[in-house]
Amino acid sequence: MSRILLLNPNTSGSMTERMLAAARDAAGPGTVLLATQPSWGTSSVEGYYDGYVSVAAALDRLAQLREQPEPGLAEPWDAIIWAGFGDAGREGLQELLDVPVISIAEAAAHVAMLLGRRFGIVTTLARARGQIEDALLVAGLLERCAGIWSIDAAVLESAAGEAETIDRCLDQARAALAAGAEVVCLGSGAFAGTGPRLTAMLGAPVVDGVCAAVALAETCIRLGVSTSKIGALAAPRAKDRPGWPMPPPPQQPSRPE
Amino acid sequence: MSRILLLNPNTSGSMTERMLAAARDAAGPGTVLLATQPSWGTSSVEGYYDGYVSVAAALDRLAQLREQPEPGLAEPWDAIIWAGFGDAGREGLQELLDVPVISIAEAAAHVAMLLGRRFGIVTTLARARGQIEDALLVAGLLERCAGIWSIDAAVLESAAGEAETIDRCLDQARAALAAGAEVVCLGSGAFAGTGPRLTAMLGAPVVDGVCAAVALAETCIRLGVSTSKIGALAAPRAKDRPGWPMPPPPQQPSRPE
Amino acid sequence: MSRILLLNPNTSGSMTERMLAAARDAAGPGTVLLATQPSWGTSSVEGYYDGYVSVAAALDRLAQLREQPEPGLAEPWDAIIWAGFGDAGREGLQELLDVPVISIAEAAAHVAMLLGRRFGIVTTLARARGQIEDALLVAGLLERCAGIWSIDAAVLESAAGEAETIDRCLDQARAALAAGAEVVCLGSGAFAGTGPRLTAMLGAPVVDGVCAAVALAETCIRLGVSTSKIGALAAPRAKDRPGWPMPPPPQQPSRPE
Amino acid sequence: MSRILLLNPNTSGSMTERMLAAARDAAGPGTVLLATQPSWGTSSVEGYYDGYVSVAAALDRLAQLREQPEPGLAEPWDAIIWAGFGDAGREGLQELLDVPVISIAEAAAHVAMLLGRRFGIVTTLARARGQIEDALLVAGLLERCAGIWSIDAAVLESAAGEAETIDRCLDQARAALAAGAEVVCLGSGAFAGTGPRLTAMLGAPVVDGVCAAVALAETCIRLGVSTSKIGALAAPRAKDRPGWPMPPPPQQPSRPE
Amino acid sequence: MSRILLLNPNTSGSMTERMLAAARDAAGPGTVLLATQPSWGTSSVEGYYDGYVSVAAALDRLAQLREQPEPGLAEPWDAIIWAGFGDAGREGLQELLDVPVISIAEAAAHVAMLLGRRFGIVTTLARARGQIEDALLVAGLLERCAGIWSIDAAVLESAAGEAETIDRCLDQARAALAAGAEVVCLGSGAFAGTGPRLTAMLGAPVVDGVCAAVALAETCIRLGVSTSKIGALAAPRAKDRPGWPMPPPPQQPSRPE
Amino acid sequence: MSRILLLNPNTSGSMTERMLAAARDAAGPGTVLLATQPSWGTSSVEGYYDGYVSVAAALDRLAQLREQPEPGLAEPWDAIIWAGFGDAGREGLQELLDVPVISIAEAAAHVAMLLGRRFGIVTTLARARGQIEDALLVAGLLERCAGIWSIDAAVLESAAGEAETIDRCLDQARAALAAGAEVVCLGSGAFAGTGPRLTAMLGAPVVDGVCAAVALAETCIRLGVSTSKIGALAAPRAKDRPGWPMPPPPQQPSRPE
Repeated sequence: MSRILLLNPNTSGSMTERMLAAARDAAGPGTVLLATQPSWGTSSVEGYYDGYVSVAAALDRLAQLREQPEPGLAEPWDAIIWAGFGDAGREGLQELLDVPVISIAEAAAHVAMLLGRRFGIVTTLARARGQIEDALLVAGLLERCAGIWSIDAAVLESAAGEAETIDRCLDQARAALAAGAEVVCLGSGAFAGTGPRLTAMLGAPVVDGVCAAVALAETCIRLGVSTSKIGALAAPRAKDRPGWPMPPPPQQPSRPE
Repeated sequence: MSRILLLNPNTSGSMTERMLAAARDAAGPGTVLLATQPSWGTSSVEGYYDGYVSVAAALDRLAQLREQPEPGLAEPWDAIIWAGFGDAGREGLQELLDVPVISIAEAAAHVAMLLGRRFGIVTTLARARGQIEDALLVAGLLERCAGIWSIDAAVLESAAGEAETIDRCLDQARAALAAGAEVVCLGSGAFAGTGPRLTAMLGAPVVDGVCAAVALAETCIRLGVSTSKIGALAAPRAKDRPGWPMPPPPQQPSRPE
Repeated sequence: MSRILLLNPNTSGSMTERMLAAARDAAGPGTVLLATQPSWGTSSVEGYYDGYVSVAAALDRLAQLREQPEPGLAEPWDAIIWAGFGDAGREGLQELLDVPVISIAEAAAHVAMLLGRRFGIVTTLARARGQIEDALLVAGLLERCAGIWSIDAAVLESAAGEAETIDRCLDQARAALAAGAEVVCLGSGAFAGTGPRLTAMLGAPVVDGVCAAVALAETCIRLGVSTSKIGALAAPRAKDRPGWPMPPPPQQPSRPE
Repeated sequence: MSRILLLNPNTSGSMTERMLAAARDAAGPGTVLLATQPSWGTSSVEGYYDGYVSVAAALDRLAQLREQPEPGLAEPWDAIIWAGFGDAGREGLQELLDVPVISIAEAAAHVAMLLGRRFGIVTTLARARGQIEDALLVAGLLERCAGIWSIDAAVLESAAGEAETIDRCLDQARAALAAGAEVVCLGSGAFAGTGPRLTAMLGAPVVDGVCAAVALAETCIRLGVSTSKIGALAAPRAKDRPGWPMPPPPQQPSRPE
Repeated sequence: MSRILLLNPNTSGSMTERMLAAARDAAGPGTVLLATQPSWGTSSVEGYYDGYVSVAAALDRLAQLREQPEPGLAEPWDAIIWAGFGDAGREGLQELLDVPVISIAEAAAHVAMLLGRRFGIVTTLARARGQIEDALLVAGLLERCAGIWSIDAAVLESAAGEAETIDRCLDQARAALAAGAEVVCLGSGAFAGTGPRLTAMLGAPVVDGVCAAVALAETCIRLGVSTSKIGALAAPRAKDRPGWPMPPPPQQPSRPE
Repeated sequence: MSRILLLNPNTSGSMTERMLAAARDAAGPGTVLLATQPSWGTSSVEGYYDGYVSVAAALDRLAQLREQPEPGLAEPWDAIIWAGFGDAGREGLQELLDVPVISIAEAAAHVAMLLGRRFGIVTTLARARGQIEDALLVAGLLERCAGIWSIDAAVLESAAGEAETIDRCLDQARAALAAGAEVVCLGSGAFAGTGPRLTAMLGAPVVDGVCAAVALAETCIRLGVSTSKIGALAAPRAKDRPGWPMPPPPQQPSRPE
């Protein structure tokens, strides 16, 4: 029985629930999925600024959960899913924790590379494309990326209007195939859960990063391997960090049960 | 219940058995592992020539199994593990089949990239290094590779003398860490099953490609995605292929039960 | 008369003062240098975790200064120097502000590339090397980098013991030249101000990122150009950001006059 | 007097003859051109699967010719032309033999790079593009490639209808120039012999891989250099290879006199 | 007080004057700008041939000025601006001199990279694009270049008809933005002085290489760093150079006062 | 009967003769080799400065020969060998002429890539390494280069003392093999003619750029292809080039018969 904690970088509980539902569908029988989001920060991540705010908020949320365990979210966690697509922060979580930390963007790319020569990514706003490209570059996963397409809709809007979102994703996924992609990655947690329908409609594999991350987290757990602690991702050094983590907030964050 | 077929590229039944045992240890509860090897070809793969012979022999073996199902190896197969480390052939199998085909070299690299900034590979003979490097290059997985080290021992020799092989692998793995790797991949099926011991001895994650491939095959099955058929990996075109596949051999190949 | 704000990512006022002194030495006659550091966060940045905490803290500090102007630090700012070497965060500041934001790591690399075919970087702890490498990769400045060397000393320790730090930097700078570098960049704000002495001792140009950043900030101001707002670095979208920025802290941060 | 053996990877004697004629036109006065094709395998190579089958069949054919010399094809061979465009296998032949082995795809690229900044490739089916791209990547010849265009016709169809093939190649060659190519490579043995006409029609150099390979084979012979045997391309190790090479086939392959 | 010599690679005095005017606008209060051009060579640089002629002519011109100082151009020079956009020659000047040598192409790219994720270049003739691309590649500045666009007008024609040139540059700059650039570099000395107007018209930063080079030259002077002399850019070796530099020309070159 | 002109970039007639002798040994029966050198310039090329002077001098020499044909050197020339190893200038010659122009550095790399996975280069002075690296980078030939080694001897000294030069080259060639090269290129015209002896001594192929260039020039002539004139290498534009080419020199250059 392994416990995987999905960490939504934004403060929107509805997004957490959406991703949790998709993650549970993807999980194997022996996996328990938990999910949470920061108690402060930004209601969606759309750009670098939001990204950097959300990383700190997420790190703070983990500290909170460790100090004041909440029912249903308490440690042990056997792996963490960092559910921001292309967002900064994965390495910070890897330093902090001893368990595998899987980013949904990288998870999607890893799985896509198993399925075809080139993958395309479909995301929400055009402004996110550079950030995703940078994330893949740093992760060493850009070589086989055919490009990044956007549906020109904001994150929360995309999550809310699923029917229209699927139509738009399908259009952009077709554009990706026309440009040489053979596999498509869903480039936002707002699209979580639409992979199977899009795969069927497109006639080519569509990889949902949340689901891919669950399976890769299970992979690491099964193989008994975790983040290497001998180099760049060693535990943070002990030192004075004034005012950090934050003092506990007056009100509890909303949280899916 | 899913059925994963491990396809050993060489004709040595002992290697098939060794890899099958490691694969079974790594598999989840709902997975049945099958394994086979070609009925003709080369007793180990050590270089490009062996590699090309073994690919054709493996493709021929699959045709054989489809035409004349053997007990315990019959279709359906839900995924194939192509158990040559850095060997050519993965794309040929992907074209031929509708199910995911996972190469053990790429599987090891994918998992290693989840665990650290740089991974090193430890393989058998020095001559294999170029071949493995080419394979990772084509797969888009070379950027985060810190290098490829060899224990200077042949494949079957390595598989036979496990104690000495582990010592040698440990030496080379330490050399890889000293050169900047943070994670080590076992670069030969001959090393299958030694991952956990080496991880413990090294103090850094050591990824066994066979085990990683099992988990990634399960990942694809769980996610309901398979090789994209819309581009480079579409099914082979119907055409005249004189004398191919081979007529059934007079004797059955050795095969682990 | 232009006003450049040096933003130290860590909370150590002594570091802020050290970098401010070096910056003032490098500034032209028409430039006023201001400097500040976050009111919460981490006393030095040594790794990704510290880096992510410090970015949010720095963004919060800027919000503070805008809402409650402090004497000697009030807007207008004509450019910002982001004084973390290889730290995340530059793009977040660029989104937030309309004025140029210059990272000291990138500034050092840009100037070094004007002076020779290959540059090496000398930094504090070995663990920072990966982070710096990633930062240069994303900035498109890695191609001419011959490598990153470390003096194996922590940031605050390096800043405190200047004589020993210079010796160690000189040793590593010589190692960089031996490996093919022709120019050396000082890879930490803790080394600020030692460039001229090291240049003289080494017999090859040594670039101090803080000083380089001042000159490049003046360059942008002089040329009348600032961060492009039409793509990835457009202003953050208006949205709900609960609890952000932080409520004003009870105590004022220490701050060099 | 040197003897160069053109090895067609497919079993179609008409293709062998076509390429042999083009090769003879390109050869110098002191060169004797021989040509053969596998006795089993695939009638054309269109994809990875065909490619891998044809490599083994070609290696087998060479073994046959060495064991049972045929009139007009017997050793000595001073060089081999591997006449599959972008097909796998070159390194396997290089390991096996002591004489230079020249791939027609690489030959075309090498010559094209002497003639302009960027070259484009025109091939038969779109599905071949990925395979050719991979082959150039591994050979280190992709940097100056502007792209790969296809005439959307199968290999044997292209070879049969020369007039239409030339028209289609011309269209795609013009598309390549429009995209920045300055030189065009003919990306299939099916186009052998059309280079001079296409060069005249296009007004830019069109390089025929078969002809380029003949000239580069002569180059190596003239310079007295052959495949390096000290690293990755050393001779195959002695070992048990059950059932390999194949027992002699009952019937002789068709063969151009 | 520092003296910066702008070295126009072509023999057109009107171009020298144009660039000098733009440079003076960009210079800080303590900088004296000088400018000259070769006494023989080519009236504009449009291609590699012109480029190579102009480099030698420029090197010869410097020798002339050192041997026979001219009023207003005499040494000392504290930095040199090599005012050919993408032209060969920068390294030759760097070897010859002890002061910083700044190429206008590289200067533009360096500044552009401070301002956005991707920069585009707008140049005169399409044939210059390859040359500029090569120059950025060698300088390690190509990674963040979104492409090179041309206004299809010759250098002297562009310099003469400023109104039309601005219109054409604006069109191409917009094309660059549409293709993903966020910043635009003016890719010819013929465009010197139009940066501020184009920045205002485009709504995105437009970087003038001449102005950028002035500011970067001042940067190097301020920081007290110059070309590294320990490697590839060490002073030319003493040796016999018959007929070089040229004997003084009978007539003085035209020269802006 | 084809006429190939070897163009030595330096003014040393002894170097011209040495390279001519090697070239004649490598040429086929139908080839006539001519050779010349500039009438002014530099006695050897050792660095960028020398390189740029020599390019202009070589272009001037060609103009001279066209205007005032000399016995034994007169046009027609069917190809040019640009006999500077890694020197600038090849594109300038390609623009100027309608016949193929083959650089000895690129020729060596092209041939080496036919013979092994990685090639190393052995050159004269260490300072040349950067220049050669840049040249291969621009030519798209750097990917398979394992490195550049130097014998630490000047060009003319190397050419004069052949026995010692061979010893030193052998030492460096062995170092290249130890570092992963499988083929070695002779990286200076001063080494012309030593390829066969070094190949025998090293036990791995050693490629002489002068000889390789002859064979590749013959290859282009045989294939009927020349420099593409549709893009970056189109003929120089007609324009005013004051004082260029140089007025004929008072004395004739020394020239091998």
